[in-house]
Amino acid sequence: MLILGVDCSSKQGSVAVVRDSKPLYQCVYDSNMTHSQNLLSLIENAVTICGINKKDIDLFAVTLGPGSFTGLRIGLALVKGMAIALNKPCVGVSSLAAMAETVDLDGVVIPCFDARRGQVYCRITDGDEVIADDDCIMAATLEDFVSSCKKDIYFVGDGKDVCYNKFKEYKNVKNHSALMPCIAYGACLMAENMPPQTHFELSPSYLRLSQAERELKEKNK
Amino acid sequence: MLILGVDCSSKQGSVAVVRDSKPLYQCVYDSNMTHSQNLLSLIENAVTICGINKKDIDLFAVTLGPGSFTGLRIGLALVKGMAIALNKPCVGVSSLAAMAETVDLDGVVIPCFDARRGQVYCRITDGDEVIADDDCIMAATLEDFVSSCKKDIYFVGDGKDVCYNKFKEYKNVKNHSALMPCIAYGACLMAENMPPQTHFELSPSYLRLSQAERELKEKNK
Repeated sequence: MLILGVDCSSKQGSVAVVRDSKPLYQCVYDSNMTHSQNLLSLIENAVTICGINKKDIDLFAVTLGPGSFTGLRIGLALVKGMAIALNKPCVGVSSLAAMAETVDLDGVVIPCFDARRGQVYCRITDGDEVIADDDCIMAATLEDFVSSCKKDIYFVGDGKDVCYNKFKEYKNVKNHSALMPCIAYGACLMAENMPPQTHFELSPSYLRLSQAERELKEKNK
Repeated sequence: MLILGVDCSSKQGSVAVVRDSKPLYQCVYDSNMTHSQNLLSLIENAVTICGINKKDIDLFAVTLGPGSFTGLRIGLALVKGMAIALNKPCVGVSSLAAMAETVDLDGVVIPCFDARRGQVYCRITDGDEVIADDDCIMAATLEDFVSSCKKDIYFVGDGKDVCYNKFKEYKNVKNHSALMPCIAYGACLMAENMPPQTHFELSPSYLRLSQAERELKEKNK
């Protein structure tokens, strides 16, 4: 099965091509949020380099969130467009679960995105076990978990620094070299084992109100 | 400092752009050895996506080997060409050391390429410590090290399966998900801390005779 995966749930974007669980192409870039400019040329590049035809893609994988509201909508719109045009199924996955899928560290892995204002989008995983599902929380509230956890803890993703700097005095909180996880690759691996969906079924998972909605709510108080 | 890195020492090729130790772009592809077709379009893509001008690149990093003879020559020729054209320095690094640089596993890491005929190009590392430098050896001869090593051992690279399958009965030999290390990124990280070289100083490090030289030697015996 040939899968093309797309992620633009954070400042980093990625594209991956996987055939029968084997990676053919992985590309990650740090965009400063210009996903709409970068993503199409990257997909064209991926298809050319892998020597495949877009028509041969069996399934599209995309991250639904949590993450950047605009980024998620760009990724979803693009994948839906390709799925409609080529009449192929797609699968949407959690961007945090997809990130965890790419990381191979022995201990508790906390994939996290910086959600600003002291908050992070995060998930807590230990191998295949999900200790806490995707949530948007104050980074500080992780302290209960961190202080009672008996295993090594690794923060991964663009929220890593926010969390690591807050908890680095705990001996079980480990630093590691700057990882640039290919979330799109993790999305492909997950999609391979999930029931295919139609583009109608995919919708973003924001987990919190957008800035505009938040401000409107404040104003109407 | 802006560094562009290139690796095509194995069937997987990669391109990376790093600014002041921070990755901007990482791309890895599984080529079936068509590096000469893929590499230039990937570099163009990297430059466009990072929003940089080729003239702004301060340093080129390239892997010198060990690895595929033809791949190494393509990578070296391309990097030398760019360095000459733009009058910028370049740095050559060990492809195995660069691979080790990208891997963040707690234990002994053995980056290895399949060198065919039961052989592997490999290196043995434990964090920053080099236990054994680059060599081309029969995979079977690693048994002495594996059997006496007290730490977990991870094989990485396209020689992983050859080694893992041979030694998997040892409890300290760990399997891990199919990694696709971005060796070009590791090369950039290494190059950042090395004295710049001119293109004249770079030459491939094959570690063994080419097939043609080997056959000529056999014939002349």
